[in-house]
Parts: sequence; C-alpha cells; structure tokens
Amino acid sequence: MKFIPDELRSEIETRVEKVREEMRGAGLDAVLVAMPSNVYYLTGRVYHGYVYVSREGSPVWLVIKPSVFDADGDVRLIRKPELIPDVLGELGRPLPESIGLESQDMAYSDVMRLKKVFSGCRFGDASQVLLRARMVKTAYEIDKMRRDGMHQAAVYRRITHCYQEDMTDVEFQIEIERVLRREGCLGCIRTRGARMEINLGSVIYGPNADVPSPYDFTMGGAGTDPSLPVGADGSIMRPGHTVMVDMNGTFNGYQTDMTRVWRIGDIPHDAQRAHDCSRHILRELEAMGRPGVKVSALYEKAMEIVRAEGLEENFMGHLSRAPFIGHGVGIQLNEPPVVNSRCADELKAGMTIALEPKFVIPEVGAVGVENTYEVTPEGLRTLTEFPEEIEEL
Amino acid sequence: MKFIPDELRSEIETRVEKVREEMRGAGLDAVLVAMPSNVYYLTGRVYHGYVYVSREGSPVWLVIKPSVFDADGDVRLIRKPELIPDVLGELGRPLPESIGLESQDMAYSDVMRLKKVFSGCRFGDASQVLLRARMVKTAYEIDKMRRDGMHQAAVYRRITHCYQEDMTDVEFQIEIERVLRREGCLGCIRTRGARMEINLGSVIYGPNADVPSPYDFTMGGAGTDPSLPVGADGSIMRPGHTVMVDMNGTFNGYQTDMTRVWRIGDIPHDAQRAHDCSRHILRELEAMGRPGVKVSALYEKAMEIVRAEGLEENFMGHLSRAPFIGHGVGIQLNEPPVVNSRCADELKAGMTIALEPKFVIPEVGAVGVENTYEVTPEGLRTLTEFPEEIEEL
Repeated sequence: MKFIPDELRSEIETRVEKVREEMRGAGLDAVLVAMPSNVYYLTGRVYHGYVYVSREGSPVWLVIKPSVFDADGDVRLIRKPELIPDVLGELGRPLPESIGLESQDMAYSDVMRLKKVFSGCRFGDASQVLLRARMVKTAYEIDKMRRDGMHQAAVYRRITHCYQEDMTDVEFQIEIERVLRREGCLGCIRTRGARMEINLGSVIYGPNADVPSPYDFTMGGAGTDPSLPVGADGSIMRPGHTVMVDMNGTFNGYQTDMTRVWRIGDIPHDAQRAHDCSRHILRELEAMGRPGVKVSALYEKAMEIVRAEGLEENFMGHLSRAPFIGHGVGIQLNEPPVVNSRCADELKAGMTIALEPKFVIPEVGAVGVENTYEVTPEGLRTLTEFPEEIEEL
Repeated sequence: MKFIPDELRSEIETRVEKVREEMRGAGLDAVLVAMPSNVYYLTGRVYHGYVYVSREGSPVWLVIKPSVFDADGDVRLIRKPELIPDVLGELGRPLPESIGLESQDMAYSDVMRLKKVFSGCRFGDASQVLLRARMVKTAYEIDKMRRDGMHQAAVYRRITHCYQEDMTDVEFQIEIERVLRREGCLGCIRTRGARMEINLGSVIYGPNADVPSPYDFTMGGAGTDPSLPVGADGSIMRPGHTVMVDMNGTFNGYQTDMTRVWRIGDIPHDAQRAHDCSRHILRELEAMGRPGVKVSALYEKAMEIVRAEGLEENFMGHLSRAPFIGHGVGIQLNEPPVVNSRCADELKAGMTIALEPKFVIPEVGAVGVENTYEVTPEGLRTLTEFPEEIEEL
C-alpha cells in the first residue's frame, strides 16, 4: 500500500512547509507528533506512530500500527518510540537540538517518555505549531470542507421530515442522526480537550436551552443522564417553543459546523427578534471579516449590535453565558482562533471559522444561526449554505 | 441543586475510601482529579473542575462550571486552579506533602500548570490510583452495568430486524445505531487514550475483518474514510460471510461490551468451528475465573485451547493479531486489567471484565463471542445474557 497517495503528494508537501514556517517562528529544529488529528494532517491517514518533521530533509513516517506498509523511503516501522533516534541515525539525520512535542494534547506520561527518548534536546510545544499551521487551510482543505457543508445542508433539508407530533427532542435527534449517517457522516466528532464530550451533536428544545452544562460548547442542555450532561433532555416538544439543531458535519475527515432553528407552532415576538438580530450580526461580520481584521473586532462588533438591541442578557446563553461567539474549525471541531474579546490573531485568507451568535429566551428556547465561513479578500464566504429563517416543523 | 444526591451519599463515601486505600498504597497524601470519568466516579456527575481527596477530611468539590451549585459544605466555586490552595486554606485543610495528578490522562501542559499550583509538593500518579480503585466495582456499579447489559441485549434481540438483503454493512450499522439510541444509549463512548477513536461501535462483515487498523481494538476493518480507519467499509453483504456486531452499550454512565455474530446464507465449517472454539474458551474461563486467579492465567488457558484446536493463525486477528483477549470495563470501555500474558493482577470479586476470544477467517469474516463478566467467588457471571449461536440474518 502506498503510504502517501500520489494525488496527495504535493498537498502534503505544502502542509509540511506550513509546519516548518511555524517551527521557525517557535525556534524549533523539529517536531514529533502522534495525535490522530496531526498525523492525519501530515499524511492524509491516521496511524499509530509518529511523524517527525525537521527543518530540512523529508518528513519521516514512523509507524507502529497497522503493519501493512513497507519500510520504504522515509517510512519506517518501529515497535516503540525509544527506537526513533536509531532510525533517524540510520537515515543519516542528525538529532535536533530542539524538538517540539504535543504538550497541549498528549498525556503527561507520554510526553515524559518522549522527553527521555530525546534527552539532551531542548523542548518546545508542537501542539501550538500544528494548530497554527492548520489554522489557515489550503485550497484542498477548503474544498473538503465545502463538500462537508453540502452534505450537511442536504441533511438539514430533510430535518422537517424527521419530526412527528408529540415526539421527544431525543427521538427527533435520533432521526436526524440516522439521516446524517446515511448521508455519509462518519459518526465520530474529533474535538480537542477533555471538556468537549458529546454524541453526534446538540438538539436543544424549549426550556432546556437555559440549563447550563459543564462543557465548552456555546449552548448547554441537561442531557438525559448525569454522566453526559449536555443537549436534549427527553422532553416532548410542544407548541410555542423553538428547537435548535447543531448536528455534526464530519463526512471526510474535515467538518463544518452549522446551526439552524425550527419552531413548533407560533413563537413569541421576542424570540423572532433575537433570531433576526443573530442574522443581522452574521451579515455585518461577513462584510467586515477580511484578511488583516482582528478576530476580536468581530466579537466587539457583535456585542455592539447586541447592546444596541438591548439583548445582552440573552446573548450566548442566559443563566450561563459563553464568552465567545465562534471558533476555528477543520479536522477538529474546536480549533483556533477563538472568537472572543481577548483573541490576538488577525484574520487571514484561508482561515475557516464558525460564527454562532445565539440567544437563549427563557421558557421559549434557543435562537440564532451558525455558519462555517472561509475568510477571503472579499469577506467571509459561507461553506454552509442553507435558509436561515425559522420554519415551522 | 444538591451536589451529591442523598441516594448516592453512602456510595460516594465507599468510593472515596477505595481511592484512599490506593493512595496509601502509592504513598500519596492527596489526589486532585479533573478528567470526566474520574469526576463522575467521585461525584456521580460530570462537571468542569476538580475533586480533591486527602487522607483525612471529606473530599472537596471544586467547581468551575456549570455555576448552578451553591458554595456549601465542601463544594467551592472557583475560576481557575490557581485558587485551589487558598480554598483549601479557608477550609482549614493543610496543603499535602505529596499529591497525585492524572499523569496518564491529562495533557502535559495541564499537569505542568497544576504542578506550579502545588509547587513544594512531591508528585505522584492519580491516574493509576483512580484506575485501581475503579477496577473493583461496588454492588451499586455492578447493578448499573447489569442494567446496561439488559438494554444491550434488548437491542441485540432486534438486530435481525435491522437487516435487509443487499444492504451494505454501514447501512446495517446505522439501523442498529438507531435501535441502540432509541433503547436509551447515550451515543458517546468513553474510551481511554488517543488510540480508541470510533463511532458507536464496530460492524465487521466478511473480508473486511482481515484489514488491520491503527487502533487498540481487538478487531480492525478499513472504515469508509482514511480519517477513521476502523470498522464497516461500505461493502454490500453477500451470502457465505459472517457479520460481527460489537456495538456500544453505554446507557447510564457505565457500559457493557458485547459481541455476537450473524451469518448471511451458509458459512464454511472452519468458521463455525472457530466460533465454537470461542464459546468453549468462554465456558472454561467462566469456570476458572475466581478471585485469586491470575488474570494472565485466563490468557494462557485461552491460548492452550486455541493451540489444541490448531487455530493460532486466526486467533485475535489474522494479518494483524491483538496481543490480548479482554479488558476491564466500566465507566470507560478500556479499563484495567488487560487480559494478556504480562498482566500482573489477580482477579478480585467485583471486577468486571470483557472477554472476547475472536477469530478472523480470511474471506469469510470474523467469528467469536464477547461477554462482560462480573468476577464472583463462583466464577465469572455474565452481564450480557444473549444467545451465542451464529444465526442467519
């Protein structure tokens, strides 16, 4: 089996160069990565093992499992990380003076083990190097995300068919999950960190929208069990309420993040007004979101519109409020930049960010729209094309 | 909202005592845990924050999010871990001389942050302390797992109804997922480590059983995308092959692990013989699996039976073979002990282990049975009661 398929060869070279640029910025001679999302980024596949990237020479693919590849070129089969220095030696590669490890993602004991393997080196953070390289997508990656968004929209078009009167929010979610999976959704969301546990996404109906959750999602919900306190809580869906659907868009290794709202019967004017405000925010941010604009400026602009509408108390939650309105998205659901007031990054062409200005109206439910955008010189271009009005289920 | 519900109070006290016993064994004065599975174990709920357990005094629940609890008794609301020493001081609790952190589970940078907070302390491994405490379940936990197993069996009873002629393995899996979710499956598997990515489980049909995967599951499969190379690959299911179903049993915070095999049309005698061998192994291990028996003896016994049948080349895989036949299971899918030749543990009453002697018959598919067992003085008692024969779909 060919390790890097021919059609990915130049794409992978581009990515390696992006990683090297960040390595230079971080003053690192090399990085060694093992987390699935980073291995996938640097090879187009997930394997158990490591990718070694130094400033010069080609990357070295160190594979522990599966053992289906031939040791060929820069692919080397190893049993354990302790063998890496020898393998590098055989390839005529000098040991680096400084090396980045995935400090923000890899377990402490695994990092310590690698530090022993590279004792004598100075250590830096490869997590940050990879996240920064991945933050600006290549044309190939954006194309994958665009196709994800089209699949996700195809699923959302069928959401009204998933609903039946007197259904619970969980039953509704299960039908959406089935449509998602039949559309090709892989059924497993890649998230970063321990505080992003979830099943295939979030369906938030009515009063449950105002139940705070421990996780780092913008919306909460009680869930159905204290072991996974997030999302749908099993309530029967009744007229006068909204249902917010924020279900997973992972179809090809990349993902798009997209939220739409439906209603059961009529909903109060307040809820509709807040929803319109969310759409107004998105239109403004789409226009201003060009390369060179500070990410924090998007947040400030949203807050300015929310304050002008007097909706601060309902913005990004009510009993508990999320301190951000969006986030990068790609191989993982939650990538940098975080769109908040403290973000130091500027927008760059090719960044992909999800913006989700949402409101919680107590007793009624959650409203607002989320789209995933590509940053272009003309502003934000949506990857999640789908009507934004609140339609009746 | 009451932090520890009354009905859980004595159960939580029991668990804290089990953790303390392991702390003493590890020479630690305290542990501080934050990973969801450990927080859930020590409180019956998941929150963002920490649980501090010292040798004396009650545990301190340090909550960052959600902010729905009153600071009351030993519950304290904090904004960040740097405030923990002050909070302990206010509660009149001396700082420990040694403290365990979750070194095997928590990211390196998070552990380093906590080490600064507790500078001056000697550090140990809380991951191991908690895993060992959790390895022997309480009666309450086993009851939860028994109920999980009943739900899982109720789903497996409906698996024949999920099948239609000319279906792909993925379509079949999607229908099983829907039945699982409607039965109450939470839809999110808690696993340990980065090498256990999966959706709701594994449906392995025919030749795909012999495709090695990078992950630490016993069986492989190509999956449908290189970003998640495991499980069903989208093949249409044809006569003469087996389908192995190993789908998730998480209904209440705990899980059971269970595998059964179905066939399409007739299958070769070899496959049936290997399946019978798996059942024979389980009967032998059920009888010998009593407190005091070495876990490795279970593995050796299985190998002895496999060798007597001349089936070594197909056991636990074919092109790639897993070096274990089972594992502990509970809050997480993969807990200690690992049932392999090197395991140093002895069985104890109340341990819960999944045993999965499986075979891969090239071109035909995978066969074998997996049950989750409770270790009792009379041997292994199954928590996953369901017929083990290979029935036709």
